[in-house]
Amino acid sequence: MNRSTKQKTTRDAILDATDRLLAKNGYKKMTIDDLAEEVGIGKGSVYLHFESKGDIALSHIDRIIERLKSNLSEMASSSAAADVRLRKMIMERIMYRFDSVQHYSQSLNELLATIRPRLLDRRRRYFREEAGIFSRVMADGKKTGVFTLKDPQKAAEAVLDATNALLPYSLSAYELGEREELEKKASNVADLILNGLKKR
Amino acid sequence: MNRSTKQKTTRDAILDATDRLLAKNGYKKMTIDDLAEEVGIGKGSVYLHFESKGDIALSHIDRIIERLKSNLSEMASSSAAADVRLRKMIMERIMYRFDSVQHYSQSLNELLATIRPRLLDRRRRYFREEAGIFSRVMADGKKTGVFTLKDPQKAAEAVLDATNALLPYSLSAYELGEREELEKKASNVADLILNGLKKR
Repeated sequence: MNRSTKQKTTRDAILDATDRLLAKNGYKKMTIDDLAEEVGIGKGSVYLHFESKGDIALSHIDRIIERLKSNLSEMASSSAAADVRLRKMIMERIMYRFDSVQHYSQSLNELLATIRPRLLDRRRRYFREEAGIFSRVMADGKKTGVFTLKDPQKAAEAVLDATNALLPYSLSAYELGEREELEKKASNVADLILNGLKKR
Repeated sequence: MNRSTKQKTTRDAILDATDRLLAKNGYKKMTIDDLAEEVGIGKGSVYLHFESKGDIALSHIDRIIERLKSNLSEMASSSAAADVRLRKMIMERIMYRFDSVQHYSQSLNELLATIRPRLLDRRRRYFREEAGIFSRVMADGKKTGVFTLKDPQKAAEAVLDATNALLPYSLSAYELGEREELEKKASNVADLILNGLKKR
């Protein structure tokens, strides 16, 4: 095992311990000392990998999304028809996140409230990255004549908007954004609901 | 003007003043004294209509939803084809709420955080009531052969789920509920996205 692999392992062990402590005590009560003890390393070793408790919480969520994206990419690359792939990906998008946080759902609001400003920036990035994966399947479906749609990227974004309310980290008032932008999103979701994606 | 009409007018004037003060100072800084002064009545008169500041905030949101429901009902009863009506209703559902709160979007999180537990119960009721209005159009669309769907009520709920992320008061982790229930919702939204509602 080389050094970078070992570092990755300790990092993952800290995030695994975070997951357990969030379930057990919640975010507020979790301390770096507890984390170090749970992993069986010194407090200083934790700080070799993370700057702060907030940094650990964000990395913990980042890891959930990285794993989700990896699952989604794999599904997107399968040889199934585009509509079959898309259905699996939609279900995965919703259920994977639920399964990742449900054991500490009591303390999730507390966690989200604390790291919200930094999380909002990240969520925009998550959304862009997910849209990139979904748009590949949209483009495939368009090419193979399974879907009727104009713009794969726009269709991917509408699918994400139409499923966002079922995610644990959903929109807050703070993110409402511009009216015009919202109206466009709403219009795309309305079209999606009325027409669906499958070719008539 | 009889007594009950006058009472309704004062009540509405207090809620109108609430709207202005939320935009001006935010929820935390708003006092019953400010409200009374803004309406031009005594503090005691405010308490004739409302029990507390939290009660006023909730009634303020109730009023937004009542007005929205009235608009939706009107649209649902129009003579247009079911798909045309549904599209208008989806846009109204999203844009009316945005327009109702955008002038105090800065203080919306603060307001929501304070009244969250009581608001959650209400949101379940709002959702049920909206679903009732939408399901009428679903049933019409089914009867007239414009939509292909099995259960108008279920279809209405899937449409609401698919647009919930675009509302100012969206789901929080606290409301995640049961996995099985979420999976069913996700599956219905996935079908909706893939197949749409319009008859092939």
